[in-house]
Formats: sequence, structure tokens, C-alpha cells
Amino acid sequence: MPASRRDAASADGSFASGRPALDQFPFDRWARLVARHARQTLPGFGDYQHPAGHAALRAAIAAHIGVARGVRCTADQIIVTAGAQGAFDLVVRTLLNPGEPAWLENPGYFGAWGALVVADARVMPIPVDEQGLDVAAGRRRSSNARLAVTTPSHQFPTGVTMSLGRRLALLDWARQADSWILEDDYDSEFRFSGRPLEALQSLDQANRVIYVGSFSKVLFPTLRLGYLVAPPALVGPLLATRRYIDGYVPLLEQMALADFIREGHLARHVRRMRKLYHERRDCLCFELQAQLGDLLDVHVPEAGMQLVGWLPVGLDDQQAAGLAARAGVKVAPISQFALEPLPRGGLLFGFAGTDVTELQRSVRALADALRKL
Amino acid sequence: MPASRRDAASADGSFASGRPALDQFPFDRWARLVARHARQTLPGFGDYQHPAGHAALRAAIAAHIGVARGVRCTADQIIVTAGAQGAFDLVVRTLLNPGEPAWLENPGYFGAWGALVVADARVMPIPVDEQGLDVAAGRRRSSNARLAVTTPSHQFPTGVTMSLGRRLALLDWARQADSWILEDDYDSEFRFSGRPLEALQSLDQANRVIYVGSFSKVLFPTLRLGYLVAPPALVGPLLATRRYIDGYVPLLEQMALADFIREGHLARHVRRMRKLYHERRDCLCFELQAQLGDLLDVHVPEAGMQLVGWLPVGLDDQQAAGLAARAGVKVAPISQFALEPLPRGGLLFGFAGTDVTELQRSVRALADALRKL
Repeated sequence: MPASRRDAASADGSFASGRPALDQFPFDRWARLVARHARQTLPGFGDYQHPAGHAALRAAIAAHIGVARGVRCTADQIIVTAGAQGAFDLVVRTLLNPGEPAWLENPGYFGAWGALVVADARVMPIPVDEQGLDVAAGRRRSSNARLAVTTPSHQFPTGVTMSLGRRLALLDWARQADSWILEDDYDSEFRFSGRPLEALQSLDQANRVIYVGSFSKVLFPTLRLGYLVAPPALVGPLLATRRYIDGYVPLLEQMALADFIREGHLARHVRRMRKLYHERRDCLCFELQAQLGDLLDVHVPEAGMQLVGWLPVGLDDQQAAGLAARAGVKVAPISQFALEPLPRGGLLFGFAGTDVTELQRSVRALADALRKL
Repeated sequence: MPASRRDAASADGSFASGRPALDQFPFDRWARLVARHARQTLPGFGDYQHPAGHAALRAAIAAHIGVARGVRCTADQIIVTAGAQGAFDLVVRTLLNPGEPAWLENPGYFGAWGALVVADARVMPIPVDEQGLDVAAGRRRSSNARLAVTTPSHQFPTGVTMSLGRRLALLDWARQADSWILEDDYDSEFRFSGRPLEALQSLDQANRVIYVGSFSKVLFPTLRLGYLVAPPALVGPLLATRRYIDGYVPLLEQMALADFIREGHLARHVRRMRKLYHERRDCLCFELQAQLGDLLDVHVPEAGMQLVGWLPVGLDDQQAAGLAARAGVKVAPISQFALEPLPRGGLLFGFAGTDVTELQRSVRALADALRKL
């Protein structure tokens, strides 16, 4: 993941991943909430804030993720952060000394990779297969790693959901190795099929999991709000560090978001987007099958905002993405999320922020472009 | 500065330092600005943001500090951060390896101290005298330090303004040692007397100064917005690190603040507060002289939001602060900002956020309490 590959999630374009349907977000309601709090509540909260975040928001998040994700926690275990990235940075800096090893899924999320790199941790790429993170491979590679970073609900970028067996094996490893698991539950709100699957954190009997959530995808990215749920013994050390990183995040959005959750707007927006993204996923899968079925092996994800079309072994996904770009279609090659070579290449299709007409048009343009492969 | 001393700036009470006159801030205007941007502008800024911050805000800050502080920079040199703390953390992490030495004023600011400590830097306490940071002492103590953290406009907490000779000596040292200076210009907007003094950055011919500003005091602390101005060669390295710390800060406040500055509201608010804080400073000085003139040696600051009353040599400032607290008066002992013992103790009086009636009442209560010393 060299420097030039870091911008994938911020790239604009037809199949940008991680981008929600912004035209569907109720910005009018949001404007009323922030205006009300700026006028009425903010003047009464003058002082420097506690590094854990606004109490009302922490309570609202605890209630929400208890219901939505089966996360077992109290508000005292929640720390509000600058997006998921702020949580990654805080966890890595607090738990790892420079040079200590950490598992990272391969392919995996560049934001977590970056947090490990800037903290001088030793990144250990661990393969992902159809059951998710390969725990046995991790044990062979680095049994004494201090931390494992994983996306169990919907692996980034492959979309695989981690099997129960793997979840239990990962928890076993962490308990035995006295290590930590960072569960990045970045887009789990959008589950379309399969049985509802609770967070890995809900299975954790030994208090080894730090759960990380983000509002960038479920609301909008410029909100820049995320959170972590820490085992009780870690809350103190995390807060002591956090105080001297960024202190806290702005209060206004925290107050507005607490109301947005408590008044039911978040749950309502998630339900609407789940339906919309489901339609868009189905449309994209249908079009890819119809137009590119002979080239791409599409893994239909049960959840999330993007999917992978795998290329035949031997075909270069960077070349494919380059052909697409020249035809005006932006699609990320899976290899750009790889720390070590992958068995085969693929293309990552974000579909949440693109309407069906545009999805159809882009797939047709892509099919034309990839004929040259 | 052990853990129990870190909360000074967030302590509520009569003489809390760093707390502006919140009841004077135009929150109604702020509410209109955030509502307008949440409704009209935010929906069009959907994607993940550049780690330097919102372009319009960076341009507005560059123009403002050019006029107000003589800082010479372009918008490209500005990085918007999570308060001054976010800037300290970013600078320290980018420029220092673990174990490398950094100068910190003694007594000094606990936020900068914390940023150095959590980055495993080696903190070198350098004495402050009536001319500010003692550069010669710094050279003797650690001539090859990588960074010097300083508050030249209005030293925290003593209130001393750094002399021109010291400024030039500090810049000389940095150029010779190939080291960096972090200029924390935390409350310089409020200058009451003496000749207008530009930022240290304006004297820097060798691009060694990183200038840090905050809107916590000039607007309100829960806004959580600050910035740094980096020498051109440092902008790239700082942004590369920042991307993986917190990415960026929420966009809504950045857009509102850009308008607040451009439409002249910031300059107007600063003018009003300068007058108000001037009155409060004068009131506090008069009352301290009248009630406690035989005990406290008051340094009347030319700028800022707090002042120090020095105790006679041999009197314990923690004991004095304890007596005050028992009488319901919160005042911080200077020794809590010390990394090494100081020649004498003192009490830190924040006056910006307290009206004159309350200042008078608190000084009388304090005078009664300190009779027991």
C-alpha cells in the first residue's frame, strides 16, 4: 500500500467505495438540529470537554449498538472519536510500542494500515479466505502479535463475512496470547440477506475486543464522527492518551447526533438506505452478470456498500482498472489494498452512492473497455 | 506535571484560566451560519476531505493572521486541526523520534507537555525569566534538541512577553541546530498595552517556525478548531502523518468559521472582547493590589486572559490554593505547571470569563482565606 494507493476511498467517480447516497440524507432535519443546539445548548457548555465525548451521545450510541449490533457495553465504555480513523490511531498508540507486531487482513483497509505505520508498528499481513481472516495463518506468522485488526461483518474489501468458527478461533488466540482484537464494523448496518449476525464483540467473554464504529457511511463522511467501545480495563489508558492527541471532537455535532439517534431518525434512515442499497446491489450484480459474466467472478455480498468482481488468475487488475479509467469508469483494483501478492486480482465496485441508471451505464462502458484485456 | 495536574484548564470556578466570556459570544449568529451551511452547502461536500482542511477556511485564516499577527504565509501552509492540541500532536509525531529531546518552557503548558510525553519525546524543561524562554539555558541543557515549544506573545502561565533579543537568539539556535520552533500563540489576540508585537514567525528567515493558533479562546472551547502554519517543506510530511491520525475535522464548523472570519464577525468579536478583558484585567489588578498587595507580587500582563500573583519566596502555592479552595475560590498554583522546582510560587488568575462583580467578590474571599498563610 504505497502512498499513491491511499486515496481510493476518497476518489470520486462511478464506483467509489465507502460513499453513501448523500442525496438521500435528511440534511434539512440535520440543519434544524444543529441550529437548535448552536442557539440553545452550546452556550451552556462552555468549558473544555471530557475526552470520552458528550455523555448524551455516548448513551445514545450504547443503546443503538446494543439493539442493532448486539454489542454489550455501557456508555462508560464508549469513546467518541474523529471517525474510525481517530479510533484506530488511539488504539494503536495506546496498546502498541514501536516495532511490536500487529495482524492486518490481506487485502485490508488502508486506514488501519496507515495507523499502524505512523505508530511504527510491525504490520503482519494475514490472508483472508472465504471464511474471513485466516487465524491459523496468523498464528503461524506471528503468534505473539499484540493486536489483530479485522472487519468480521463484511471484510474490507472482499466482502466476506467471518464464519463463527473463525470468530471463536480469533477470540481464543487473543485470550491465549493476551492480545487485543480491533473489530472494525464499518458498514454493518446494511445487511441484505442471510441471518442477522451480531458483532464479534458480543461473543467476547474475555474482554479482548475493541469495537470500532463510524458514522461516515451511515450518515455522511464530512460529519467526521466515530467511536470505539473498549473493554472496561482499557478505558482509562485510552482516555489518558486521547487527552493529548486531539482532546475531544466538536460538541455541536455530538449533541445533534445524540438527538438524531434518540428521536429515531438514524434507525429510519438506515432502514431506507438498506432498502435502497439492496436494490442497487441487485442491479449491479445483474448488470455485471449480463455484461461481464464471462470475465468477472462476482461475490454477492450479504451486506455493505461494495462488492468485488474477481478476475481470472493471471489477469492484471491494475491494467483492467486502467482500461476502465480511460473509458471514464473509476473502479479500484483489489491489489491496491494488498500488502502481499494475492492469488488473483479483482475490481471493487462501490454501489451505495450511485443510482441504478448510472450503474447500468457504467457497467456497459466497463464491459466495452475490458474487451481489450 | 503528574496526572492530577492535567485538568487545570478545564476546572470550573472563579479564576479558571483559558476560559473566554462565553455569554458574550454571538451564538445566534453562529447558529444561523451552521444552519445555512448544513442545509445548503454540506450536501454538496459529500466525500472524505483533504487532511489540510477546508480551502475557504484556510484562505480566511491566512488573511486574518497576516493582518492580526503579522504571520507571513499562504493558505497552502495552513493545516486545520482539532484545537491547538491536535497541532501539537501532529508536529511532535511528525518531527520527533521516540527519545529525542525537546525544549519546554518551565513553567509551561501542560497540553504541549502531554503531546511530547505520549510521543515518547524527552522533555527538557528550560527556565523562563522576565524576558521569556532562557535560550542560553536551553543551549546549555540540550543544544541539539529537535524542537523548542514556546509561547512568545504571552508566556503560559507567567504572562511574560518574549523580548526581541530572545526571539532572535531562539531563531539563531534553531537555524544553527537545524531544529524546529513550535510557536504557540494561544491568546495573542487580546493585547491591551505596549507596542503591537508580531508573531515570532514573522521574524523567521530560515523557515524553522511552526506557528500554532486556536479558536478555543477567541471563539469558544467546544468548537475544537485550531490550526498550524508550517514552513513549506514541512507541509507534505505533516499531511502524510495527519491522514492517519484523525484525517480531518468536521466540515460544518470549518465552513461556518470561514464565513464568520470573512464577514468580519471575528474581528468585531475580538475588538469587543479585548475591551472587556482589558476592563476585567484592570479590575482584577486593582482588587489584588487593594486586598492582597502585601502578599502577592502581581505581574500585570500586556495581553491575554490570565495573570500571575507571585508569592514571597518560601510560601507554598499549593497550600495557598488549598486555603482558597476551602473558601470556595478556585485558583491554580503555578507550581502545577512546573517540570522542575521554581524559584517561587504563585497563583494563576484567569479573568476573561468572570465579570467584575464576581472578580471583586472572589478577591475579597481569597484575601480572607490567605490570612491563614
